Amino acid sequence: MIGPNIPLEIRDFPLPEPKPKEVRIKVEYAALNHRDLWTAIGQYRGKSENLILGSDASGIVDALGEDVHNWKLGDKIIINPSLNWGEDENVQGPDFQILGNPDPGTFSEYVIVPSSNIVPKPLHLSMEESAAIPLAGLTAYRALFTRGKLKKGDKLLITGIGGGAAQLALQIGLASGAEVYISSSQDHKIEGAIRAGAKKGFKYSDPNWVQDALKDLPEGFDLILDSASGKGFADLVELCKPGGTLVFFGGTAGSLGPLVPAKVFWRQLNILGTTMGSPREFEDMVHFFELHKIRPKIDSIYPFEKINDALERMKSGQQNGKIILSIG
Amino acid sequence: MIGPNIPLEIRDFPLPEPKPKEVRIKVEYAALNHRDLWTAIGQYRGKSENLILGSDASGIVDALGEDVHNWKLGDKIIINPSLNWGEDENVQGPDFQILGNPDPGTFSEYVIVPSSNIVPKPLHLSMEESAAIPLAGLTAYRALFTRGKLKKGDKLLITGIGGGAAQLALQIGLASGAEVYISSSQDHKIEGAIRAGAKKGFKYSDPNWVQDALKDLPEGFDLILDSASGKGFADLVELCKPGGTLVFFGGTAGSLGPLVPAKVFWRQLNILGTTMGSPREFEDMVHFFELHKIRPKIDSIYPFEKINDALERMKSGQQNGKIILSIG
Repeated sequence: MIGPNIPLEIRDFPLPEPKPKEVRIKVEYAALNHRDLWTAIGQYRGKSENLILGSDASGIVDALGEDVHNWKLGDKIIINPSLNWGEDENVQGPDFQILGNPDPGTFSEYVIVPSSNIVPKPLHLSMEESAAIPLAGLTAYRALFTRGKLKKGDKLLITGIGGGAAQLALQIGLASGAEVYISSSQDHKIEGAIRAGAKKGFKYSDPNWVQDALKDLPEGFDLILDSASGKGFADLVELCKPGGTLVFFGGTAGSLGPLVPAKVFWRQLNILGTTMGSPREFEDMVHFFELHKIRPKIDSIYPFEKINDALERMKSGQQNGKIILSIG
Repeated sequence: MIGPNIPLEIRDFPLPEPKPKEVRIKVEYAALNHRDLWTAIGQYRGKSENLILGSDASGIVDALGEDVHNWKLGDKIIINPSLNWGEDENVQGPDFQILGNPDPGTFSEYVIVPSSNIVPKPLHLSMEESAAIPLAGLTAYRALFTRGKLKKGDKLLITGIGGGAAQLALQIGLASGAEVYISSSQDHKIEGAIRAGAKKGFKYSDPNWVQDALKDLPEGFDLILDSASGKGFADLVELCKPGGTLVFFGGTAGSLGPLVPAKVFWRQLNILGTTMGSPREFEDMVHFFELHKIRPKIDSIYPFEKINDALERMKSGQQNGKIILSIG
């Protein structure tokens, strides 16, 4: 499955062979991320053509490179798409990459990854569901815990609840005993989140939503998770409790700010960027999901050959949960 | 000494009496902060007229309210201008105030403060020097340590080195074993900072200063301390090492940003607001200054009746170090 332009094409390639410490995975299901769409349409940093896209997958260990001892053929696994994070838990190193750009990704019958980048499929999830969690779950887990220091009883606001990481953040937040609020521009997404356990939803396309939220929560939120940035980030600053934290991992609404400095410094706010996560965080995320029986929300499952329809679905912004490709 | 407009006037008041748990201080020296100037010209939040300005002072315990047992008349002290910080080290509580607005401040022969807001004058400092450290030292100490987690060997950039907090931050940074870099728009301030031990200074009015700094430090700074905000904050984001931290406590250059989101989130940056500090931080700051024999830089000392000349000096932006009033 090749970029840079939609429609993508399915092409034949020779079966890839694992090098030492690598494994070949026979992909069963893959999941789409915005990164795939942006790469496909040439709006992502790095390479943008002659790529095999795809970061997320569940599958089966199909071949072992040399020096791989802890896996056997047929093991059901999910892939951690954070490649070469490095030694520092605070930040990825210079060799860091996300699977699918530039290395060949998971929108393929077979994919090669380091053996340290697979973990057993979560016991409580189907293979379809397992494919939905790696990138979004890792992003949400690091954002909320490592970066946001989320704790029981916190009032958590998650913006743009349609996104995959936001959806899983909602479930992680609820499992942690946080009081979770969400925002969206679409009523059906707000209703879905409330059915899933969110305390309340705000429609951020409503010009009064910030005042309404402050009426409900005059003290503000302990933690706000955002992936939009944009001018609206100033609203989130307004909604954050003194001493509170805003964590963000995206910029779909463009440049962040401007912000009124005193609203940040006088109120001792923390504005923290985050992306992806370390191998330790990936394992912790999977354990947390198993412990709390967290199931990702799936929007739709497309057969592999309908990849372009799947990308169109993502581009529409109508999806509510992960868009899955059935490959294996 | 009364606002809101320059020229300020010196007026007679009845001698104030301490209530329980308060002390009356006979002020020897006071120091100016930008806050005093902004209040005087009506550009500060809160009250702006019929005020006695002034946050910083050294002086002598002159009268004890009831229930004050740990001080005696004649003790030489400095004042912690953070009033009613509250119980949470992370953020000041709703009753927090800074001495001098709205409560009567230190530009006065006598001032009343809670007995918990005075600490013994640092042994190694003169009374003039002692008056120069409270607000700026507290701000710099919390910004660098509590917020910025400064540690030995860190590459620290302090912007706008003319300011009182920036000057003390330079000395705190050097005492901590950090490699300290500074910026200013004025050559004589850069030269002064290098004489004081800064590794290098950047002239931020030079359009190429960011590229020049990145040539010297291609990896960027571990910690950046800023009080300007403004559009130039985007340059500081550029100069921050992946995983690094920007701490800011002012907005003299106006609204912060806009910022390119990916430059913050992809690089796992921390943007932290800070202001003033807790009583614990004030005591820690004084001990740190004693331990490392840190002396504040004094720009000039004005007799009390020349307060308006002192404010003019501050307004000019030419000062390099603290402007002191000799009162007692």
